[in-house]
Amino acid sequence: MTGPADGALETPLGPGAEFDRIRRLAARWGDRARGLGDDCAFLEAGGERLAVSVDLSVEGVHFRRDWLSPAEIGYRAAAAALSDLAAVAAEPLALLLALGVPAEESEATVLALGDGVAAAAADCGAAIVGGDLTRAPGIVVDCCVIGRAAAEVRRRGAKPGDVLVVTGALGGPAAAIEEWLAGRQPPAALRERFARPAPRHAAARFLAAHRARAMIDLSDGFAGDLLHLLAASGVGAGVDVGRLPVLPAAAQLAARTGEPAWRLAARSGEEYELLAALPPDAAEAAVTACPVPLTPIGTIEAEPGLRATERGTPVTLPTGYDHFRTGAG
Amino acid sequence: MTGPADGALETPLGPGAEFDRIRRLAARWGDRARGLGDDCAFLEAGGERLAVSVDLSVEGVHFRRDWLSPAEIGYRAAAAALSDLAAVAAEPLALLLALGVPAEESEATVLALGDGVAAAAADCGAAIVGGDLTRAPGIVVDCCVIGRAAAEVRRRGAKPGDVLVVTGALGGPAAAIEEWLAGRQPPAALRERFARPAPRHAAARFLAAHRARAMIDLSDGFAGDLLHLLAASGVGAGVDVGRLPVLPAAAQLAARTGEPAWRLAARSGEEYELLAALPPDAAEAAVTACPVPLTPIGTIEAEPGLRATERGTPVTLPTGYDHFRTGAG
Repeated sequence: MTGPADGALETPLGPGAEFDRIRRLAARWGDRARGLGDDCAFLEAGGERLAVSVDLSVEGVHFRRDWLSPAEIGYRAAAAALSDLAAVAAEPLALLLALGVPAEESEATVLALGDGVAAAAADCGAAIVGGDLTRAPGIVVDCCVIGRAAAEVRRRGAKPGDVLVVTGALGGPAAAIEEWLAGRQPPAALRERFARPAPRHAAARFLAAHRARAMIDLSDGFAGDLLHLLAASGVGAGVDVGRLPVLPAAAQLAARTGEPAWRLAARSGEEYELLAALPPDAAEAAVTACPVPLTPIGTIEAEPGLRATERGTPVTLPTGYDHFRTGAG
Repeated sequence: MTGPADGALETPLGPGAEFDRIRRLAARWGDRARGLGDDCAFLEAGGERLAVSVDLSVEGVHFRRDWLSPAEIGYRAAAAALSDLAAVAAEPLALLLALGVPAEESEATVLALGDGVAAAAADCGAAIVGGDLTRAPGIVVDCCVIGRAAAEVRRRGAKPGDVLVVTGALGGPAAAIEEWLAGRQPPAALRERFARPAPRHAAARFLAAHRARAMIDLSDGFAGDLLHLLAASGVGAGVDVGRLPVLPAAAQLAARTGEPAWRLAARSGEEYELLAALPPDAAEAAVTACPVPLTPIGTIEAEPGLRATERGTPVTLPTGYDHFRTGAG
């Protein structure tokens, strides 16, 4: 682990400038903070455990208006927050929406943003229970989500020998952004992955039932989030990047640009697939029965550090998606 | 009540363009939302009732960097959110901080923002339990606060004959903003009210224990929030604005500009005092024993509408503070 000490970070984070900042904030807060570093905060209330998360989506950073409709902006912002609940296998209950819009913004835009948030919440079974509406220089969508965390699945807990599995297929968001940045409309299969991500709640419950020992969503991208999971669990891993599931339309784009498809998949941020560590005796059955495609991509090892190979040849993973370095804007 | 129908708004709001937008969003959401319109959302978990609120503070709208230090910006943003818990007499438990800062922002600024949030949370007994850190064109501080709501004190519930009381003294934030806008440094007594507001948790618990039937904080200003409380309760009120408690330094400014002091106090937004309706037999004892100054300013009446007078002469209250109309920016 590089960077400052973890201080109040209950769950250590992987490397990166954004996470160094979080480490420094946590160190500063000391015992005024607790439980930081996971996808959700956990609160005990009357014997129930609730999971809570906030997720901020900012115009020019997380989305651009020439790329997405207002309803898509709202949907995507809410889905990103709801995905944090999936990462801890929590059942979505409620969403609070803090919305900032320019003073001159049309009523239609505000209502469409609200439509998108409501659609994402309804798709996950959460009700909108509150919020805040204010003026802002550009659109800001902050969603606070609350879920019931029956299982305790977090970033930490992976053990040597566990099988690392990834849901779905990766690369869509990064490929969509590249098409837009090149002045092209991304094909529907890519655009949809960016505009209307589907948090993996059903898969999360399935993985929790199949004894997932550690889990994380891929909002920082596979390369970044794998390192978070390893840091949180205090373990290392061997990963065969050639097995990373890549969305076909993203693989096609990679083939055109000459980038290895696995590399595009590994660096693609704001993916809302899940990465989980399953005990070896549970992994095979899980892969067969999971309601979404589930791909084994490596094994947890006791020795810290990541050993990535492609068909046996060592490779270096790209660094994770980082809002202080890159971003959609 | 003007504007569109309330739809999913469980608690009707008072008039205003910002609230018309919230009404339209709520109508659109229909049964995908519930319980909207109070200072907090309420969630039942394992037999306990939790209160949750989000509050978004945006650079140029809620604060300006030439007015406040980063630590003050953080403190004020967190205090504003925590005040929503006071408004429902909930005991603060936890805060999640979603922070957006420009990519080029110094580490010192980010840490100072975090210091301010942590100080406000600690002052109210809440721990920072999670958050989100991202890039944004200007500073955005979104705080989600969670509290334990033992009493059920909300905006609705005021009954004819109840005595309306206000904690503390008003006018500080509006007077501070006017000084800054005129190019002057506000005196410390005004500046402090804007930069470091103190949510009224002790007073809230006291008022709940003295059978407060309805309560609201004055984040939209006295004039606006009184109308919210009346709308929520389906009642009217008679108010003697001459009795409104005005901060002495704000009264001095009003005297200089020729504005009636009560008017400055009534239109001053982002006040974090409380307005409550107490049963008449509880009001007198409450005023005597309250840990902060408590001023009776009027009476709830069955007839809808607000009848404001000053020494017996009818007056019209200014319209409430509204981010779509005014703001600190």
